[in-house]
Amino acid sequence: MESATIGFIGLGIMGQPMALNLIKAGYRLQVYARRPQVTQPLVDAGAKSFDSPQLAANRASLVITMVADTADVEAVIFGQQGIIHGVSPNTIIVDMGTSSPAATRRMAEQLEAKNLEMLDAPVSGGEQGAIDGKLSIMVGGKKTVFETALPVFQVLAECITYVGDHGAGQVAKACNQIVAAQTISAVAEALSLARASGVDPARVRDALLGGFAYSKVLEIHGQRMIESNFKPGFKARLHAKDMRIALTAAAETGISLPGATLALDHLERLIERGGAELDSSAIATLLEPQ
Amino acid sequence: MESATIGFIGLGIMGQPMALNLIKAGYRLQVYARRPQVTQPLVDAGAKSFDSPQLAANRASLVITMVADTADVEAVIFGQQGIIHGVSPNTIIVDMGTSSPAATRRMAEQLEAKNLEMLDAPVSGGEQGAIDGKLSIMVGGKKTVFETALPVFQVLAECITYVGDHGAGQVAKACNQIVAAQTISAVAEALSLARASGVDPARVRDALLGGFAYSKVLEIHGQRMIESNFKPGFKARLHAKDMRIALTAAAETGISLPGATLALDHLERLIERGGAELDSSAIATLLEPQ
Repeated sequence: MESATIGFIGLGIMGQPMALNLIKAGYRLQVYARRPQVTQPLVDAGAKSFDSPQLAANRASLVITMVADTADVEAVIFGQQGIIHGVSPNTIIVDMGTSSPAATRRMAEQLEAKNLEMLDAPVSGGEQGAIDGKLSIMVGGKKTVFETALPVFQVLAECITYVGDHGAGQVAKACNQIVAAQTISAVAEALSLARASGVDPARVRDALLGGFAYSKVLEIHGQRMIESNFKPGFKARLHAKDMRIALTAAAETGISLPGATLALDHLERLIERGGAELDSSAIATLLEPQ
Repeated sequence: MESATIGFIGLGIMGQPMALNLIKAGYRLQVYARRPQVTQPLVDAGAKSFDSPQLAANRASLVITMVADTADVEAVIFGQQGIIHGVSPNTIIVDMGTSSPAATRRMAEQLEAKNLEMLDAPVSGGEQGAIDGKLSIMVGGKKTVFETALPVFQVLAECITYVGDHGAGQVAKACNQIVAAQTISAVAEALSLARASGVDPARVRDALLGGFAYSKVLEIHGQRMIESNFKPGFKARLHAKDMRIALTAAAETGISLPGATLALDHLERLIERGGAELDSSAIATLLEPQ
């Protein structure tokens, strides 16, 4: 897959730096974005911009979608002027956004019927991880197809895990988001208890970093909460969207996740209060005395 | 404080290895335990055993209490044959168990009226941390008193944080326990979603370890859940007791902690089902399909 042509659909906060890193690594990029103005930095870096997913996918060995939700992925793959109308047989379509595991399995089946391979390869690590090429990627699909795509993933990520069959990457991402949301909520509760007790929350964070309560969230989001710095990062409305995907997936398998449900409730209250574009760690502000 | 005499009250799972490490470090230990048979390994190692907290505290520069709950601490300090009847002026009384922050402030005041210094210095890190001398200690009280006691703490711990005035160590411990309980619950939900979705929870754990969802709990308790190994570790009934302390402290300051309340509910259901003596990560079993 070295120096192959890659189609890249969706150039938002995450997609743009990911596409740039692929160009820097020597891949030929064919890009499409709904808002054409966002393609300019990519074109300046050497990418070709196209007017539809279909055209951007033309003759690419691999097409990456990095769009907002499941419905958007389905539209850019199967819609009028969608990827499937442009690709050659054996092209690998890689959904790197966060989508429903069940919808992913359905899409993979539909693509397989057309001799097209799909991988679900959602990422964690945020904008900074995308810029630094240090994302974490969780991959579902056929192992052999994963191995073909691996050199591309290695440009984007520090940690790449093959999780299992179609949808398994999205299940892992759902798990990631429910752990992250609940850990943020837990840290918010702890620092709020410290503050309400007249104890310096920064000292409490320090004390907790050294023990079993250690988490990346305590380190990074805990610091954000102490500084009241809620510039995203990862926006509350996107975290809420991912939590809805996770809870729908759970409901489909017949289990209930009370902690994740509570965390989504926090995110929704934050959004109602106007915090949709803040970092999701701003749920800490819900715990401040009213 | 080098090679001083230390009184040590309470020789349970945590107290016993802590006391042994102090003996190894050259301190003279005077021990007391409610069940006299548990003192034997300490006596074999060179400690002197006494029949009351009062006698074990006699002529000690520092007296450590490591007993089960707030009522027990109050009894061993202030009760008949309690520590205060045995100590010399300027002795430092160090409560290393997990107690109520409010009760801690009251006890410190009462002791101050008798020219006795108190530190609250609860620990995190479990039995293994106690054995290895790698606990995390969170300390509240006067800074100068903390500095006097520091060499003793350094024998027991890898991470020692002076958090603030009397009770601040217990507030930090409460924060630690509410973060730990909720993170355990979050990891349990994630691994349960993976399993219910037909995805290998071990692979999901691997994928999550590399990103923002990383926590010590995911690493250690996540592995316990995958192996269904719930040998404590930290017993569910003790975690529930600590959560009650934390939630009482929160209620006293006028804040509510819905995530911590839910986590305590999980622990109580586990205990009702006969899991009181299991590691608290056994709350994962509550999420298995019934």
